[in-house]
Amino acid sequence: MINESMYQLGSKPSCIRELFMYGLKQAAIVGKENVYDFSIGNPSVPAPQAVTDAFRAITAQEDTLAIHSYTPAGGAPDARAAVAADLAARTDTPVRAENVFFTCGAAPALVSVLRALAVENSEVIAITPYFPEYRPFVECSGSKFVPVPADMENFQINFAEMEKRITANTQAVIVNSPNNPSGAVYSLETLQTLAKLLTAKSQEYGHPIYVIADEPYRELVYDDAYVHYIPAIYPNTVICYSYSKVFSLPGERIGYFFIPDCVEDSARLFAAAAGAARIMGHVCAPSLQQQVVRACATVKPDLTEYDRNRTLLYEALTEYGYTCVKPQGAFYLFVKAPKGTAKEFSDRAKQENLLIVPGDDFGCPEYFRASTCVSNDMIRRSLPVFKKLIEEV
Amino acid sequence: MINESMYQLGSKPSCIRELFMYGLKQAAIVGKENVYDFSIGNPSVPAPQAVTDAFRAITAQEDTLAIHSYTPAGGAPDARAAVAADLAARTDTPVRAENVFFTCGAAPALVSVLRALAVENSEVIAITPYFPEYRPFVECSGSKFVPVPADMENFQINFAEMEKRITANTQAVIVNSPNNPSGAVYSLETLQTLAKLLTAKSQEYGHPIYVIADEPYRELVYDDAYVHYIPAIYPNTVICYSYSKVFSLPGERIGYFFIPDCVEDSARLFAAAAGAARIMGHVCAPSLQQQVVRACATVKPDLTEYDRNRTLLYEALTEYGYTCVKPQGAFYLFVKAPKGTAKEFSDRAKQENLLIVPGDDFGCPEYFRASTCVSNDMIRRSLPVFKKLIEEV
Repeated sequence: MINESMYQLGSKPSCIRELFMYGLKQAAIVGKENVYDFSIGNPSVPAPQAVTDAFRAITAQEDTLAIHSYTPAGGAPDARAAVAADLAARTDTPVRAENVFFTCGAAPALVSVLRALAVENSEVIAITPYFPEYRPFVECSGSKFVPVPADMENFQINFAEMEKRITANTQAVIVNSPNNPSGAVYSLETLQTLAKLLTAKSQEYGHPIYVIADEPYRELVYDDAYVHYIPAIYPNTVICYSYSKVFSLPGERIGYFFIPDCVEDSARLFAAAAGAARIMGHVCAPSLQQQVVRACATVKPDLTEYDRNRTLLYEALTEYGYTCVKPQGAFYLFVKAPKGTAKEFSDRAKQENLLIVPGDDFGCPEYFRASTCVSNDMIRRSLPVFKKLIEEV
Repeated sequence: MINESMYQLGSKPSCIRELFMYGLKQAAIVGKENVYDFSIGNPSVPAPQAVTDAFRAITAQEDTLAIHSYTPAGGAPDARAAVAADLAARTDTPVRAENVFFTCGAAPALVSVLRALAVENSEVIAITPYFPEYRPFVECSGSKFVPVPADMENFQINFAEMEKRITANTQAVIVNSPNNPSGAVYSLETLQTLAKLLTAKSQEYGHPIYVIADEPYRELVYDDAYVHYIPAIYPNTVICYSYSKVFSLPGERIGYFFIPDCVEDSARLFAAAAGAARIMGHVCAPSLQQQVVRACATVKPDLTEYDRNRTLLYEALTEYGYTCVKPQGAFYLFVKAPKGTAKEFSDRAKQENLLIVPGDDFGCPEYFRASTCVSNDMIRRSLPVFKKLIEEV
């Protein structure tokens, strides 16, 4: 008399979390310095000083009720206003605070929007490679999960394949740029082609096909990569955001969904997403964290360390003979397994205490993901293992 | 193409939240001192000093990654261990840290457990008066919501009515003691009768009927009231808890579900609830708040102020002629409307800027709820309004 699908989801945690937990256990056995854990996207650089200062300044206040009380469900008005002002400045468009709804990170934001869009026979498209949790999020919110095969050349979008999969039931396309796991940042051309396709299909089927832009890595881009503001290119775009990566506080669960006025049925969709949050037990996002965001909404991260890691691992791996598209954003490398499946390869790597995530759950079973949000020193120490593994095959 | 029931849930927020928002708006118009807001259960006493000290000490640490990183989904092992140790000491039973799962407050804990128990045709019983969100939580998790009429004498359980409503599909009974809104604390006799009934019915139908004990007010009891540890009386009991009320930090979203080993299918139910949390986008409860709980797991609240408020309002209202059972716990008074429905009465009160919650959504349309987690001064200033209103009828 226990829900079987919930049991399956709870007893088989995501492969990433499983590897991460394995890494913790293994570290206790062989020593932390002998485990090369590239599994999880736990930021490895300290929180920006402004963020740390904000935590200290807010908790130093005497009026604890002002710090810790309930906020409205969508968040404290001043915190929402700070986010809206920052979004407006960055995107050069008007943004209303009322369109921002604080959540406990990007994941519940995404689930809230997905549940708001779940209707009879609804389908949601994700672009391979995709964050593995998209599948259970879509399926358990009540829609069919429709993956589009990857563009293996550069991990932009394979439009021929996408077009084939859009039906009258397509409610949304999840766009994740900068992409986890590939590090791809969608070009203006990609986004314009996407807009053209979705506009035509929305017209054909007589209802909007929404883009759900999952953007936790928005601020994490390198070289001359630029993250375009998608609603300016395709108005029916909802944004899900998290401060986990940019402020190095993934454990603190603070993010938001933002449904701009340009979205068709904007107010109705916002209300439905708020309703979905409500029945998942969302009361408000952590109040203290909201205040930190209010104080730090314009703070930019220092990417020096992530860039150094990316370059080090990318250059070493390609030198050893691995195949990998150089990531333009996020903090992962998505690498082709030198032989066989990535599952076999990562199992072999595990024997050497090198933890990399096979791409199966990302929809790319021939690739593995290596997080570069790790210590530069660990990368250096792991290189002989990567070298040994490719030399074996 | 937007989910209609989510829209309804989001566009009609809970009556409590609605009144609370109205109070904020009205305060801006007529002045904060002229609004008597008894609507929301926002604690009115400062956080315990130990909690404030813990927030400051943790955020003062230099290693921000140690403070803010992801924890395992169920929580940081040391925080779970601290909660388990405190539970073990209080209940004089062994408690394993692995059976505690940190959530963003009691609400998502409750929804996770409800979703884990939702199977075909499942039904969940709540005892009137009940927290209004129980209804959408149960219904949207996939079960039928079955309210049991109240025991109006003393707000214990009306067992004759409960027995009539238990069927082969009953999966769980939600027990909320100390009760919001009545302030009733279930006696040992009540819990033993409940155990007897549910044991017999579980046997009759060949599957466990679980008790879901929603206990955010566990530490808030007055006089000689005592909150019994229900699993010791009825083993198939899951506990949902929140630190919102006891630590005066309702905005910070920290609580847990605890599924003791004595629960039938304990491990399976725990996994299913964890799975349910996962697909609602739960990644972990706020890491900083977990650490505060770890540091303060044994801290007890100072109830002087709440007790003073309870006594002041209870004595004044009963003196004016209102009918009310004296609450033994929590921080609410549940009062019979002197005439007509509580909705009519609270609408009239609203005209005087006195905000009380009509009992309709609690399943008792003849009663209203007045929160006593307000300033003692505001209660004093509001008394002439309460007096005037009863004199009118």
